[in-house]
Amino acid sequence: MTIDDLLQQSGSWLAPGTDHGPVISSRIRLARNLKDAAFPGWAGEEECERIWKELQPVLLSVHAGSMLSAFGMAELKELDKQILFERHLISREQAEKGKGSGLVVAADESVSFMVNEEDHLRLQSIRPGLDIVGAWRMLDGIDTEIEKSVSYAFSPRLGYLTACPSNVGTGMRASVMLQVPGLVLMGEVNPIIKGVSKIGLAVRGLWGEGTEAVGNMFQISNQIRLGEREDQIIASLEQIVLEVVEHEKNARVRLMEKRESLVRDHVGRAYGILTNAHILSSKEALDLLSALRLGIDLGILKPMNGRVIDELVLKTQPAHLQKMEGKALKPKDRDKARASLVRSEIARAAKSM
Amino acid sequence: MTIDDLLQQSGSWLAPGTDHGPVISSRIRLARNLKDAAFPGWAGEEECERIWKELQPVLLSVHAGSMLSAFGMAELKELDKQILFERHLISREQAEKGKGSGLVVAADESVSFMVNEEDHLRLQSIRPGLDIVGAWRMLDGIDTEIEKSVSYAFSPRLGYLTACPSNVGTGMRASVMLQVPGLVLMGEVNPIIKGVSKIGLAVRGLWGEGTEAVGNMFQISNQIRLGEREDQIIASLEQIVLEVVEHEKNARVRLMEKRESLVRDHVGRAYGILTNAHILSSKEALDLLSALRLGIDLGILKPMNGRVIDELVLKTQPAHLQKMEGKALKPKDRDKARASLVRSEIARAAKSM
Repeated sequence: MTIDDLLQQSGSWLAPGTDHGPVISSRIRLARNLKDAAFPGWAGEEECERIWKELQPVLLSVHAGSMLSAFGMAELKELDKQILFERHLISREQAEKGKGSGLVVAADESVSFMVNEEDHLRLQSIRPGLDIVGAWRMLDGIDTEIEKSVSYAFSPRLGYLTACPSNVGTGMRASVMLQVPGLVLMGEVNPIIKGVSKIGLAVRGLWGEGTEAVGNMFQISNQIRLGEREDQIIASLEQIVLEVVEHEKNARVRLMEKRESLVRDHVGRAYGILTNAHILSSKEALDLLSALRLGIDLGILKPMNGRVIDELVLKTQPAHLQKMEGKALKPKDRDKARASLVRSEIARAAKSM
Repeated sequence: MTIDDLLQQSGSWLAPGTDHGPVISSRIRLARNLKDAAFPGWAGEEECERIWKELQPVLLSVHAGSMLSAFGMAELKELDKQILFERHLISREQAEKGKGSGLVVAADESVSFMVNEEDHLRLQSIRPGLDIVGAWRMLDGIDTEIEKSVSYAFSPRLGYLTACPSNVGTGMRASVMLQVPGLVLMGEVNPIIKGVSKIGLAVRGLWGEGTEAVGNMFQISNQIRLGEREDQIIASLEQIVLEVVEHEKNARVRLMEKRESLVRDHVGRAYGILTNAHILSSKEALDLLSALRLGIDLGILKPMNGRVIDELVLKTQPAHLQKMEGKALKPKDRDKARASLVRSEIARAAKSM
């Protein structure tokens, strides 16, 4: 498999239908390290290469549901690394690494492994919609499979040992990606974020820690890795997510009851700009696509091939755009290429229904 | 004629075609006062009424090219006064007056007279496009006609006497309404405004003194009323306007050469928002209609019945909107009614070509 093959699909973290609710995707990430080996930050290049070589065949042979491929960071072009980042398959930190660091990923992107990022091994499973349990079961099985071949650094008292103390214990981060335009339009999103933070969960933007919440998208994840079992952590996260979903649904009903013109204006302008603009930033595109999705969900806009909207979230990202154009583009030229892509894809989506 | 009859047409200050250039209209205003009568600000209600009664038959019988009608301010509803203001037929000051103050206006609105505003008589002539000379000839003839019936307050040394010293002399204000989106988009409009101001001309917004320049529209007029003949004042104003027009045409050429995407984006977004928004303020509507007009002029948009765009400039004004809806509307509801009107009228304009 090549990076180009990945571009043929929309990424498993994007739901495949037109009628997904506020929950876009669920994700589990596990941090693991090998026994008797220095953490990547301390290990030399040689040791990292040895670990990457040792783990590669193990990871390529797990049962992930679709064919697995390996990519060494040293062999990838900058643009391809950026594409993997935009698809949530590697972190910004891993994109900066070279020899001894790599990615193993399933063809459908539902399962992936970062080798020698912060830890020796980061396992990831993403599923569309609200399905943290499904993602966990998948990854738990794979984790057990891998442990048959390698020995993890594990303390009976603390649990899994990791490079960053905050991950020690389960090494698990469970997260859910939500799109809450209703709460944003009702001006109710900030109290909810504050409430969620207060009970020990983290709220982040679309591309993880420190990124802005564009397109009304937020990630909610557990902060606790120590002292609770994985299924407990997942159950309490799921509980909170269900509450936020209820708030969002409720906000959408009240929006249509009390601020129908505001919503129709918000959605109408988004449609008007997406179909007529000639310069479009990445952030504006995501924000407007969110409004378009809301308009379809609320029946304000005619149904449209929703997959096209989901795919545009990825296709409008800088690296994806440049890959498609077949050349490096300056930000200004990306904004033009993005507007052109969006105009034609939305016209196509509207026609195909 | 009733106020409703006026609403059947687009107002003579709006050019009637699709291809008017940067100059929308030319206007001459003359301030005149009667000999041996106190200025309106000093006269009592009784004296004002006497003057309004004396002037009415005189004004109604001048040769203005179309039928003349008289409206007493005291008999007009607030909404109708507001409509006359939006159509540039009375000033904001006159709209606040009652008994003894009135308007005489030609059916095509090309000639009108305010009685007992600041002066006893204000004569006005508006013509589409750049035709200050035409407006002046029309009004000069009418002025002579009126002087056969009444005696003006006139000093052989100073000229016509007026309530405000700044109008003494010719009592004439010649002005031209320009729409300069090219200069605005090229960021070159401020130096031009400054330059025009420096040589003794006034630059104002669409609705006169103290109003904002919305829709990229500006009025340029003479400040000097004393010490120069009318034809000299007009010739020098026309000269400056022609220079600004050249600058605007030049700016449009350079825009398409150097910033084509910016213009296409500006025009496209305007079209997208006008055809899809559900809430539209008066200012935003004028700004977007200006962009739409620019798009048609530059051949970016398909030709559209340009009269519809010109008419929308008036129809989207608060009083016109309320008159059309047949009831008083709060600002919020006006913004909705305005968006709805604009959506349907532009769809109609696009279809009718």
